[in-house]
Amino acid sequence: MGLSDVEAGFRNAAGIETVIGVLRQRFGDRLQTGEALRAQHAHTTTYLPAQSPDAVAFPESADEIKMIVRACAAHKVPVIPFGAGSSLEGHVNAPHGGISIDMARMNRVLEVNAEDLDCTVEPGVTREQLNSDLRDTGLFFPIDPGANASIGGMTATRASGTNAVRYGTMRDNVIAVTAVTASGEEIRTARRARKSSAGYDLTRLFVGSEGTLGVLTSVTLRLQGIPQAISGGVCPFPSVEAACNAVIMTIQMGIPVARIELLDALQMKACNAYSGLSYPESPTLFLEFHGTDAGVAEQAGLFSEIASECGGGEFQWTAEAEHRTGCGKPDTMHTGRHCSFVRAPRVSPQMSACRFRGLPNASPRPRPISSPPDLIAPIVGHAGDGNFHVLVLIDTGDPAEIAAAEDFVGRLNERALAMDGTCTGEHGIGQGKRPYLSLEMGEGVAVMRQIKQGA
Amino acid sequence: MGLSDVEAGFRNAAGIETVIGVLRQRFGDRLQTGEALRAQHAHTTTYLPAQSPDAVAFPESADEIKMIVRACAAHKVPVIPFGAGSSLEGHVNAPHGGISIDMARMNRVLEVNAEDLDCTVEPGVTREQLNSDLRDTGLFFPIDPGANASIGGMTATRASGTNAVRYGTMRDNVIAVTAVTASGEEIRTARRARKSSAGYDLTRLFVGSEGTLGVLTSVTLRLQGIPQAISGGVCPFPSVEAACNAVIMTIQMGIPVARIELLDALQMKACNAYSGLSYPESPTLFLEFHGTDAGVAEQAGLFSEIASECGGGEFQWTAEAEHRTGCGKPDTMHTGRHCSFVRAPRVSPQMSACRFRGLPNASPRPRPISSPPDLIAPIVGHAGDGNFHVLVLIDTGDPAEIAAAEDFVGRLNERALAMDGTCTGEHGIGQGKRPYLSLEMGEGVAVMRQIKQGA
Repeated sequence: MGLSDVEAGFRNAAGIETVIGVLRQRFGDRLQTGEALRAQHAHTTTYLPAQSPDAVAFPESADEIKMIVRACAAHKVPVIPFGAGSSLEGHVNAPHGGISIDMARMNRVLEVNAEDLDCTVEPGVTREQLNSDLRDTGLFFPIDPGANASIGGMTATRASGTNAVRYGTMRDNVIAVTAVTASGEEIRTARRARKSSAGYDLTRLFVGSEGTLGVLTSVTLRLQGIPQAISGGVCPFPSVEAACNAVIMTIQMGIPVARIELLDALQMKACNAYSGLSYPESPTLFLEFHGTDAGVAEQAGLFSEIASECGGGEFQWTAEAEHRTGCGKPDTMHTGRHCSFVRAPRVSPQMSACRFRGLPNASPRPRPISSPPDLIAPIVGHAGDGNFHVLVLIDTGDPAEIAAAEDFVGRLNERALAMDGTCTGEHGIGQGKRPYLSLEMGEGVAVMRQIKQGA
Repeated sequence: MGLSDVEAGFRNAAGIETVIGVLRQRFGDRLQTGEALRAQHAHTTTYLPAQSPDAVAFPESADEIKMIVRACAAHKVPVIPFGAGSSLEGHVNAPHGGISIDMARMNRVLEVNAEDLDCTVEPGVTREQLNSDLRDTGLFFPIDPGANASIGGMTATRASGTNAVRYGTMRDNVIAVTAVTASGEEIRTARRARKSSAGYDLTRLFVGSEGTLGVLTSVTLRLQGIPQAISGGVCPFPSVEAACNAVIMTIQMGIPVARIELLDALQMKACNAYSGLSYPESPTLFLEFHGTDAGVAEQAGLFSEIASECGGGEFQWTAEAEHRTGCGKPDTMHTGRHCSFVRAPRVSPQMSACRFRGLPNASPRPRPISSPPDLIAPIVGHAGDGNFHVLVLIDTGDPAEIAAAEDFVGRLNERALAMDGTCTGEHGIGQGKRPYLSLEMGEGVAVMRQIKQGA
């Protein structure tokens, strides 16, 4: 299906009916058309309207994916790969109907090469499942976007998250993928070598392509050794600006911080309310250091000095796991930050059932930002990457609030672009950021379109 | 010009003459057609035959590059971007004639954003020039392929080198490029944000595209803070295998080594002969650690233990710069390894004027390799990446020696691929590795071809 058809809102009812008939013969019960299941495969995480697919297929192999893609290509029916459904920009919506390919049954860890520090997994494997599988190897997969996303979805949206500042994003941690392209053929984008200069970087082309160039059938990932020591700490600051200055100095000094997360005062209030904690309700940095015992102690000491120089309060840190969990869950201190997704609504109890909109932006360096005066919008930031999220809490039944949020989002994106930043640091474009892609990329969008048309 | 024309060896004499006429009017003396200068712009670093362009243009701006590309596109004449000419796979050859675009006058550092740890340069800036320009900022650009290559050439070939194990390759260190595509338009592939998920990763598509998708007009690079402390050391091993085992353990333990270079016994002999040194002539690892004073001492200590466990000799290291220069040049200990390009011929004095062939290969982990029994072929390896070079010394006037080298190269590449490795870890495909690209990438080459045709 060409882009022009998509733009025009074309829905190929006859083709969809034919494809469902064809696939039912092969997939039987693994092709579902019930309304409830279809609704679960539409976008549900923000105020973007949900748009269900016409059917959901549950393939168990690359060959079955080939069959779905070929049938859909022959009849010009859209396919929508579906991982965990945790994306935030309407990626899994089916605006023109079509077949959702649910990867739930393609969830095998195919190969772990512990000596080579890599593994190959099917796209439906979630990051928590993978790390659970790896627990006896001394290795882990570091990318952590918060949600228990699927590896396929994380690859497709070029996900990153809290510890990208040290370990990079999916861009840096995917070694190769296999994918079924629109022609129904399966390609492999690279071998397992840690680096290569053999032709175009097809791996990086597929990472972040949001399902538009092919359906992933496997992903080969780089793994990391679990550090000997992990230390974590919390430090309040008098202002977002002071916290940002501390981040800038930390990065410039080359301290190999593993996580450096910024929560604004409002978000800290939400954390306290949700978890019954008593952190100071001022802008706060949560940090984590990975290394040797001596190394993490040295890093924490260096950061303490920086924090003090920037007007920060006392930097409280520990290398003991049980004390790193201060936010009510037996995980790490960063549970506090991770749960902002569910905690934020607690700031305003009457809105606790509202959906919100995630707004990832990134600029070359962390810069002071502030919530809009007329909206409840706490901020969390992967400050080491200059990437932050504003969680705008709105009543999705109120068009005026939606309009106010849209207006704020527009100004925020324009400001990020004016600073030579990006409208989307890690969640991709999907439906929600489409208007901003051309603003950001200009003529580059034409090149992307040529690549898509040729693929 | 389509790929099919290239395959057929087509040379468009009339078009070339027309383009030279058009460009002469604009460029005057900055368009040269003298034989000697043209010969300097053909490939000259290996036994691949030199193939001169018909003219060499020296543009001074992106607008002038647009003009050259438009004139050449209109008349179906090849353009060949030329940086420092240090590539090793025939990249700057002009098999079908055409216009070489020499970037010597596009050598300005356009912008250094010290706070954001990035800079933007024209493609003709060399890495030594850039680091010299940066010397007062406390920052440096870490990628170091050995030769004083141009940033444009390093970007186009996805270069890496000795410290990629810590800082990554050009893939990881290019933030954005601007390029003139075949249509004569200039595009920018990304903003300056440290990460983004806005559409296809055009930056990574251009990095390693070897000039086939456009002519680079600027490159935005990530910079690093100069480490507080640098320590370096040397450790001999009884066998290449023992040295590889030490490398594997070092990487698995997560020691953030900045360089870990393997030289085989023959290469050590060459180093000793060239620089009047007295290193043991056995396989040897050269290491470098970057960090704080305490950090580099700790890293060196950990490596000492690993080396000892793997049967290595004494690991001699120092953090004092003057003692890290043991190889006759006031640079770093790695000068010894870096100069293998000129030193290797000293093993066999009668061959001192021979050219050699660099053979970068990479596998997922360092594996024992050995020189071919019937050829003089020392080995140097970026062992931390599993990437090594075999320098086959041959008399380029002797067809039998060329055939023996070709045969060896073929077996070496097949072996790398059998281990799920790559035929080219860092020098690109060029002319020399073309036969191996399809072997390595299979159907992926068809996708690359579609991208090239669409661009």
